[in-house]
Amino acid sequence: MTTAEETADGENMPWDEVTPEAARRLLVAAVEAFAERGYHATTTRDIAGRAGMSPAALYIHYKTKEELLHRISRIGHGKALEILEAAANGPGSPAERLADAVRSFVRWHAGRRTTAHVVQYELDSLDAEHRAEIVELRRKSDAAVRRIINEGVQAGEFDVPDVPGTTLAVLSLCIDVARWFDTKGRRTPDEVGELYADLVLRMVGTRT
Amino acid sequence: MTTAEETADGENMPWDEVTPEAARRLLVAAVEAFAERGYHATTTRDIAGRAGMSPAALYIHYKTKEELLHRISRIGHGKALEILEAAANGPGSPAERLADAVRSFVRWHAGRRTTAHVVQYELDSLDAEHRAEIVELRRKSDAAVRRIINEGVQAGEFDVPDVPGTTLAVLSLCIDVARWFDTKGRRTPDEVGELYADLVLRMVGTRT
Repeated sequence: MTTAEETADGENMPWDEVTPEAARRLLVAAVEAFAERGYHATTTRDIAGRAGMSPAALYIHYKTKEELLHRISRIGHGKALEILEAAANGPGSPAERLADAVRSFVRWHAGRRTTAHVVQYELDSLDAEHRAEIVELRRKSDAAVRRIINEGVQAGEFDVPDVPGTTLAVLSLCIDVARWFDTKGRRTPDEVGELYADLVLRMVGTRT
Repeated sequence: MTTAEETADGENMPWDEVTPEAARRLLVAAVEAFAERGYHATTTRDIAGRAGMSPAALYIHYKTKEELLHRISRIGHGKALEILEAAANGPGSPAERLADAVRSFVRWHAGRRTTAHVVQYELDSLDAEHRAEIVELRRKSDAAVRRIINEGVQAGEFDVPDVPGTTLAVLSLCIDVARWFDTKGRRTPDEVGELYADLVLRMVGTRT
């Protein structure tokens, strides 16, 4: 995976919430470096170099490499939670909201798979306090999906013997898209989203 | 993830097919190091050190770090293929064989998740020729599962509009167990296998 490919894939999140511009550029460079070489093989010098900056300039914005990973993880998991809560709180039946959650979550993991890969796989590299914060965001994401499934069961629309286990499987299926999705492959993110929405509605015992 | 934890989890594959003993110990050390720090952050010196050997002793068995990764990947993917083909060629209805494939594949990814993590996530670190060999093993694994699903469709037992897409989703669901499975969590590998077998039978439009 190279920077050129990533740009071609339209993978670079704007990260507009990160200011000033130098801090944003460093964050984008860190996402690329972590995805390509892994967190432990990346130095702050590598990240500064990718961003066309000096190590000293990096330290103005980020004290440590872990601070960069934490910032990336918080924004990435925050976005995932936002997507799932929007679906959970949206209009429509539980089946419609569950399909909507899956479609949007798959699109995010396919379209932003470099970021998704870093935030999903480098959790163990965060320090204890930051890790706890991210685990809490993931718990809330899980709760948003579980809530839709519970509502479907209560409404008699879904038949789900194991709600927590099914919730975990639904999220896992969508997250793993970041591992296998290939922008040069035969399916678009929207097509994978449609396929997965159908499969998940089958998993919860309803059919579209 | 530490060596001590891995041993406690019973994660170390015996790797009995690797001889002599020094070559096997080096392979086990490489799996641990790659899983813990990533391929790029690991040196052959780290691997030799973990195995209690000198770098010179390592070079007797493996010329490069990539050769170690290739060996691990070939054995790991070979085992995955063996599991899936055994299920595909086994007795019973397509539903029984598909459930069996899912149960065994989940058990493997939960029980050997350090190995699974390395072989599933470090594919890009292999050189072109070795990567092609592993991609071919994965294609055969995919074909084994697709064959069961096709047989179920032909027998009128399954209702699957998109067989290749559903095959991909089934494998992806099982593979991602290696990312989230926690030996200290509330579910055993067998329980996850049962849950997933039920969910997959729902995905293919049949119910147990």
